[in-house]
Amino acid sequence: MSTAFAAPPLSRDSDLPLAEQLAGRFAEMIRQHHLSPGARLPSVRSCAQTHGVSPYTVVAAYDQLLARGLVESRPQRGFFVRAQPVGPARATTPAPHPFQPSTPIDATTLIRGMFHEPGTRPMPGLGTLPPAWLDAAMLGAALRKVTQGERLEALSLHYGEPQGDQRLRDALSHRMAELGLRAAPEQFITTVGATQALDLVSRTLLRPGDAVLVDEPGWAVEFARLAQLGMRILPVPRGQDGPDLAVLAHLAQSHAPKLYVTVSVLHNPTSAMLSPGHAHQVLKLAEAHDFHILEDDVYGFLAPPHATRMAVLDELQRVILVGSFSKALSPSWRVGYIAAPPGLVERIVNTKLLTTLTTAPLLEQALAWCLEQGLMRRHCERVVAQLDAARTRCMQLIRSAGFQLLSAPQGLFGWVDVGVDTERLVIPLLEAGWLIAPGALFHAHRQPSTLMRINYASSQDARFWKTLQAEAMRLSSQRPSTAR
Amino acid sequence: MSTAFAAPPLSRDSDLPLAEQLAGRFAEMIRQHHLSPGARLPSVRSCAQTHGVSPYTVVAAYDQLLARGLVESRPQRGFFVRAQPVGPARATTPAPHPFQPSTPIDATTLIRGMFHEPGTRPMPGLGTLPPAWLDAAMLGAALRKVTQGERLEALSLHYGEPQGDQRLRDALSHRMAELGLRAAPEQFITTVGATQALDLVSRTLLRPGDAVLVDEPGWAVEFARLAQLGMRILPVPRGQDGPDLAVLAHLAQSHAPKLYVTVSVLHNPTSAMLSPGHAHQVLKLAEAHDFHILEDDVYGFLAPPHATRMAVLDELQRVILVGSFSKALSPSWRVGYIAAPPGLVERIVNTKLLTTLTTAPLLEQALAWCLEQGLMRRHCERVVAQLDAARTRCMQLIRSAGFQLLSAPQGLFGWVDVGVDTERLVIPLLEAGWLIAPGALFHAHRQPSTLMRINYASSQDARFWKTLQAEAMRLSSQRPSTAR
Repeated sequence: MSTAFAAPPLSRDSDLPLAEQLAGRFAEMIRQHHLSPGARLPSVRSCAQTHGVSPYTVVAAYDQLLARGLVESRPQRGFFVRAQPVGPARATTPAPHPFQPSTPIDATTLIRGMFHEPGTRPMPGLGTLPPAWLDAAMLGAALRKVTQGERLEALSLHYGEPQGDQRLRDALSHRMAELGLRAAPEQFITTVGATQALDLVSRTLLRPGDAVLVDEPGWAVEFARLAQLGMRILPVPRGQDGPDLAVLAHLAQSHAPKLYVTVSVLHNPTSAMLSPGHAHQVLKLAEAHDFHILEDDVYGFLAPPHATRMAVLDELQRVILVGSFSKALSPSWRVGYIAAPPGLVERIVNTKLLTTLTTAPLLEQALAWCLEQGLMRRHCERVVAQLDAARTRCMQLIRSAGFQLLSAPQGLFGWVDVGVDTERLVIPLLEAGWLIAPGALFHAHRQPSTLMRINYASSQDARFWKTLQAEAMRLSSQRPSTAR
Repeated sequence: MSTAFAAPPLSRDSDLPLAEQLAGRFAEMIRQHHLSPGARLPSVRSCAQTHGVSPYTVVAAYDQLLARGLVESRPQRGFFVRAQPVGPARATTPAPHPFQPSTPIDATTLIRGMFHEPGTRPMPGLGTLPPAWLDAAMLGAALRKVTQGERLEALSLHYGEPQGDQRLRDALSHRMAELGLRAAPEQFITTVGATQALDLVSRTLLRPGDAVLVDEPGWAVEFARLAQLGMRILPVPRGQDGPDLAVLAHLAQSHAPKLYVTVSVLHNPTSAMLSPGHAHQVLKLAEAHDFHILEDDVYGFLAPPHATRMAVLDELQRVILVGSFSKALSPSWRVGYIAAPPGLVERIVNTKLLTTLTTAPLLEQALAWCLEQGLMRRHCERVVAQLDAARTRCMQLIRSAGFQLLSAPQGLFGWVDVGVDTERLVIPLLEAGWLIAPGALFHAHRQPSTLMRINYASSQDARFWKTLQAEAMRLSSQRPSTAR
């Protein structure tokens, strides 16, 4: 393994993301036989140190080499140069390209890491339920039901309604009524998961340069998306009852934001629930300062029925509610929805037309069937009961490891303080087979944090906590941590 | 039917689209019982005249009333006020909202009209093949195949790869090789139809205010989308061999565009094919002026194998190719793809992550199976043969009606000159049961046109041409047309 790297340092000012620069260098070394077939690439940790980049960047670069067929991955051993590059022979160093808005690549690189399950172990850092908790049989039955006989034709051979499948919008209207929200089917717009829902609303309401309030901690994809759209992001500290009202009022006063994007129910990553009092105050601020609220209800199916939603108080006047089937039923069917004020529906549908034309009625109708039959409700009850048990077990493990749970014991996520900068734990843990979600991922402007998010469903393995404890102790013995 | 409208004229400066304003007025009249249950709404034509708006705006407004359950549609008769408004009682006049970038609503309103098939007759204005020409049995077999046994789990219960299903990317790489394009599977990114493909590339490469070259005539959704993203649109006249090279060179020189969005193969609406000579010249201009080319190959599956694609000449260095299964296989499964230069792949995938996270591997893998089995190829051969026959028949009908076909006889679309402003024919034809696509729809800046696009597959009914001929004669006898 001879990787004498005389190359200049990677450039952070380049139009090319760091991971691409790094992949390009390795590709070039392989092409010029500085790295021979069978040679092992440096470990993620040492490569990150050599190049002064985050371990995520290295993982992303190695993934690119893997995707180009230049290297192969051997479990527990690392990455090795392949004998014969697979795929058409092409220039392996990407051509520089002149125009690129400065997209927040680091956040997306981080996120992409979350889509790679390095092994078969449960991944404490994941944001979804483990596949074993979900119900493929129900989805299969739903698919068969809605495609029976001639029905497949109607769901495949011409464009669906731009607003989304009527049957799903009817079912969603009923489901929302159970939560106290009166919303007619014509107020719903189906989307490609909650992600497109958030994107469509942003693109409909916002212009580049607009100020947008967000929860902090909050979800990195949302920060990155707003940044890519050219928005000014204003983080509002999120407590157990909701946003810090004084900060919210101050930012609203001084920045005239157009939108507040927030998770009221089982907030990610803290599992906090908005209190009714806070909901009322936030709505009053929204009215006084004339901004919309985008209430991301993506964990709603896992919440108790009495959970407070601003959309219910406000009756969908100023609040736009967004939801999804990704968390409770199927991450990869990509079905989400928007419940919008009547005056916004047509404008949001127009944005949908321009970005994906329509969405797939086949999958939408199958999910409608799950709702109609009451199967969705029973499934969610089962999942919530399983989650309660998993949480109890995790809380014992957290205590035994000497860590502190900062979140109220509810929902899918725990927000755990381990006493050392969790970003520095990512690679040692990954090398031991565990993907974690460090606290830095949940800050609009990355900063060290001793916190991490765990998924109760996938953090029940005592070996994980043992490894985490050992690595945290090793780190804290190296030098005192200053972060929190 | 008493619709004495003392209301002030609709406002074009309002934040509310005209259609919403109009719908709001009718809703208010219904609420206040100025329009009683059972009353018929004015005809589209007379309402458009009364309010000085386009008939499309009226159709969109009536659709909204329909969606709100305030009126019902009776075939051949019109729209009638319902006895009991359906759905939760809500404020029917949309609340005004303070912030709205000036989205090109008129274009999207036009487009939305295309998703409403008013009857069971074939629609000459549609952009897709009639359902009867497609193959639901093949899609059903594909779905069953890829979801057999345990397979549904892998395609449903965790997120798919952000770049798209591996099996589909492999199959696309093989398909493209048959067209002479060497593109490795890792250069493909799957998307929600070609629409998302175009959107992702634009969002990755462009910033608001950038200049973008487009074909004119061209596709209205594309114009509207670029406008919504804040781009400066530079139309380039499109001839039978490709773009007008002198205009292209001049615009490139004077506006420094970042991108040229074009359809090389079976151009919409003219069915023109880019000549090899033009392809070479356009690529030279792109290099000289340093812009990317987004080659929209959405009709590629219906084209002869020798069709010229700039992506093949350029070997995916400066050209990004976009395709879709919507035209040949399934409009509503919403599966498209991008074949990108290696240096752009990661950046486009990052944009995809931020806008829809991933896409549905279930539908992608089913389409991969259709490609792998050779079923897609045989299906396309059948469709092309059917299309040849339909075109022959249509050309006879066009001649008999005294109209002129301006396009070369190939592909899905004919570009027909009927001698009068085709936008004025839309409503009379719609009232007779035929949806047409007027030439104005294909101009970046709407302007009267005596041209219209027909779909050969759905324009074979002699009654359509008879009606069109009669209405065109009626119009031309009213006053001489100045448009062309």
